[in-house]
Amino acid sequence: MSAQIGVTGLAVMGANLARNLARNGYTVALHNRSIEKTDALLAAHGDEGDFIRTETLQELVDSLEKPRRVLIMVKAGAPVDSVISQLVPLLEPGDIVIDGGNSHFEDTRRREAALAEKDLHFVGVGVSGGEEGALMGPSIMPGGSRESYDSLGPMLEKIAAKYDGKPCCTWIGTDGAGHFVKMVHNGIEYADMQVIGEAYDLLRSAAGIEPAEQAAIFNEWNTGQLSSFLIEITAEVLGHVDARTGKPFVDVVVDSAGQKGTGRWTVVSGLDLGSPVSAIAESVFARALSSQRGQRAVAQETLKGEEAAVELPETFVEDVRQALYASKLVSYAQGIDMLNAAAKEYGWDLKLDEIASLWRAGCIIRAELLDDIMKAYAGSEAPANLLFAPAFAESIAAAVPAWRRVVSVAVQLGIPVPVFSSSLAYYDGLRRKRLPAALTQGLRDLFGAHTYNRVDAEGTFHTMWGEDRAEVEAVDTH
Amino acid sequence: MSAQIGVTGLAVMGANLARNLARNGYTVALHNRSIEKTDALLAAHGDEGDFIRTETLQELVDSLEKPRRVLIMVKAGAPVDSVISQLVPLLEPGDIVIDGGNSHFEDTRRREAALAEKDLHFVGVGVSGGEEGALMGPSIMPGGSRESYDSLGPMLEKIAAKYDGKPCCTWIGTDGAGHFVKMVHNGIEYADMQVIGEAYDLLRSAAGIEPAEQAAIFNEWNTGQLSSFLIEITAEVLGHVDARTGKPFVDVVVDSAGQKGTGRWTVVSGLDLGSPVSAIAESVFARALSSQRGQRAVAQETLKGEEAAVELPETFVEDVRQALYASKLVSYAQGIDMLNAAAKEYGWDLKLDEIASLWRAGCIIRAELLDDIMKAYAGSEAPANLLFAPAFAESIAAAVPAWRRVVSVAVQLGIPVPVFSSSLAYYDGLRRKRLPAALTQGLRDLFGAHTYNRVDAEGTFHTMWGEDRAEVEAVDTH
Repeated sequence: MSAQIGVTGLAVMGANLARNLARNGYTVALHNRSIEKTDALLAAHGDEGDFIRTETLQELVDSLEKPRRVLIMVKAGAPVDSVISQLVPLLEPGDIVIDGGNSHFEDTRRREAALAEKDLHFVGVGVSGGEEGALMGPSIMPGGSRESYDSLGPMLEKIAAKYDGKPCCTWIGTDGAGHFVKMVHNGIEYADMQVIGEAYDLLRSAAGIEPAEQAAIFNEWNTGQLSSFLIEITAEVLGHVDARTGKPFVDVVVDSAGQKGTGRWTVVSGLDLGSPVSAIAESVFARALSSQRGQRAVAQETLKGEEAAVELPETFVEDVRQALYASKLVSYAQGIDMLNAAAKEYGWDLKLDEIASLWRAGCIIRAELLDDIMKAYAGSEAPANLLFAPAFAESIAAAVPAWRRVVSVAVQLGIPVPVFSSSLAYYDGLRRKRLPAALTQGLRDLFGAHTYNRVDAEGTFHTMWGEDRAEVEAVDTH
Repeated sequence: MSAQIGVTGLAVMGANLARNLARNGYTVALHNRSIEKTDALLAAHGDEGDFIRTETLQELVDSLEKPRRVLIMVKAGAPVDSVISQLVPLLEPGDIVIDGGNSHFEDTRRREAALAEKDLHFVGVGVSGGEEGALMGPSIMPGGSRESYDSLGPMLEKIAAKYDGKPCCTWIGTDGAGHFVKMVHNGIEYADMQVIGEAYDLLRSAAGIEPAEQAAIFNEWNTGQLSSFLIEITAEVLGHVDARTGKPFVDVVVDSAGQKGTGRWTVVSGLDLGSPVSAIAESVFARALSSQRGQRAVAQETLKGEEAAVELPETFVEDVRQALYASKLVSYAQGIDMLNAAAKEYGWDLKLDEIASLWRAGCIIRAELLDDIMKAYAGSEAPANLLFAPAFAESIAAAVPAWRRVVSVAVQLGIPVPVFSSSLAYYDGLRRKRLPAALTQGLRDLFGAHTYNRVDAEGTFHTMWGEDRAEVEAVDTH
């Protein structure tokens, strides 16, 4: 008996993907650095399908049908390179090495190029859905060569989550495209969670609605425009009562949010690509700020607020819902803008409708909204920005008055809403006829001779500020 | 005759620093890849001091007293490495190689380590002040070994800008510390310019004040709390009338702001350090957004605003001034927070009072404010955040009511104020007793078993969400 795929690295994500494959009828060869994990997996779940136990990478490779498929599920970074370097000498041209971890897409690009020189396929695969998703059906974003997908794709599609029967897995694009798209998914996830937090804080601090009552509100919101996994579990978390104290669970948790790095990566990549992912950045910074506990303790004593008394609009709860929706839409628009910029930069032919489609189930940001986003990009004319799609231009315009009211209230009450307000600034900035960037250019020309363009003439100009202020045509040599 | 210092790379910054050195009595050896530039400089300014003309790097090195000091003034990136690799074989232990360009501090760290192995000093020097500063007296931020500063410092201090007779130059710290501090200076500069732009836009779009009249307002502001080079030149730019059209200059300039990359670097570094530099990030993104001209054109037609009619407070102009002041203070606080984080990360003993001191003259962000910042850090107990220094806690608290009014007005009128609002969110976030990050942690624990801490017990916990919701003590293995 030979296996269709081998998995090396049997921590929970690797183990669950291996089980998912076996449950779907594939014979799966198992390998782990320490055999104990392999045996534990076999003891607990060996009856779920056909597994082959191997003790060395050589045994793993020998147990596979050709072309071989080896899925690496180890910690991103140096461990991946280490496994690759042990694996490569054992493989033959045409074999496929798969990295299913949260690797940085630049690492994936580097590894793909290196293995291509040895006629090996290297496929970076973004996998979203956490431990449960890995077992029950994740959202899967594979990069690598188109050819490798012909061999690997059917297996991945089989174990992926399904939305209306359609697998949440499709070939994303060459080399690091899969890991890039997964990274952007995570960036959006950061923003999604932050805007939910801002909505919760407003309902709690401005309107005095306790967590239990908010659980009901979020459950109701989950039946409409905002319907999504994150809204659903927000209701669950807010409704949870701490057994130890009888208090709302959310009140006994330390308010410092951790991060694993993919949100940061998304912002760095947005900066590199010149894509203004401000809402995602504010989400990452909000977590960083929450973790500065020493400074926060001092600030509570030191920084005065002088909040105004504000009468809340009668529609406040619904206003917050609309502000949340609009802000969420902006973070998706920014993520998609990054995808467009990356497609140009890295030569990927990203299909935005397919990407939205495979985020509809299995992953953390799964939401009704993604079905509409898919439709927005399904036509022949893709909008240059998600917000320009007629359906979204309309739905966000409908939310704008409430959005303004909510941010205005928050600002007056001293409730920080970094993403609500940043998203609104993005929306207003994008649609603004004239931005003060013209003044910025004037200042840069004055102090650094950085030159400027004119609205009424071709060319690049510089004003002789220190002299007679004559304007000269210039070549920017800075 | 031998020279005290050699300069290679005689574009405008290199030429002006060479002239500045010669004017201050040093004998300066000149070198450029093409001799034409050297000869042009000598023809135009050879009478300003003692120059030695050299045609090759070997001649340059031979013309210098020992230990040799060679200042490299070429484009940051590969050209610097190229010059270093040509130069190093010609040098002797104890010689000093200086990079006065806008190099990334990580490059400087790498180069410093490489040259130290050959017993050479490598000194990355941040130089701010543009072309005029280079000639008349820049603000100078040298890194590298303390020993190298003993040899190089007196020359740099002599050519630096002076504030109350004190040179705007001091040893910043080892390896890349000088270039790091220069990078943060530039990040603050981005924010400084953006908040000025937001103030201008508000005065223009909300209050209908034309540029000429605003020039008078900025001139007045320049006599108070905001007094600074950038406010001064804002008045100059706003007062300038375009000769070709008779219109305000600011109206004929294309409103897309360029960037050279140091702002981006600052934000990336802030992300790496976990320092929430949101105001600086918003400034960088505001420039990126302004440059998306294609999308902006569509957005003007597509995105509806629904601004409310707002009655401006009678104090509006003064309110804007206060909002500008408060936002500016936040961007300085964020920049300094990065410096504190970097000092820990890279083992630099950064003296914040000295850094503030040397930014008081010569550089783009020079401002009265920096004198107060210097004083805030001059004592034995440095505040953990600039805003906690008593003088600033007081002055920002005084500005808070106006700040809230201004952001609220902007939000209602649809005038984008990304940095005014982001800074306010930072201020309110920092001083907030409870942040919704607790909810974020709850969500992360539910979908990813990322665990959380409790406010009332030591340890790391996980709730068994999918099961009986019992809480278990956990070791975070993710």
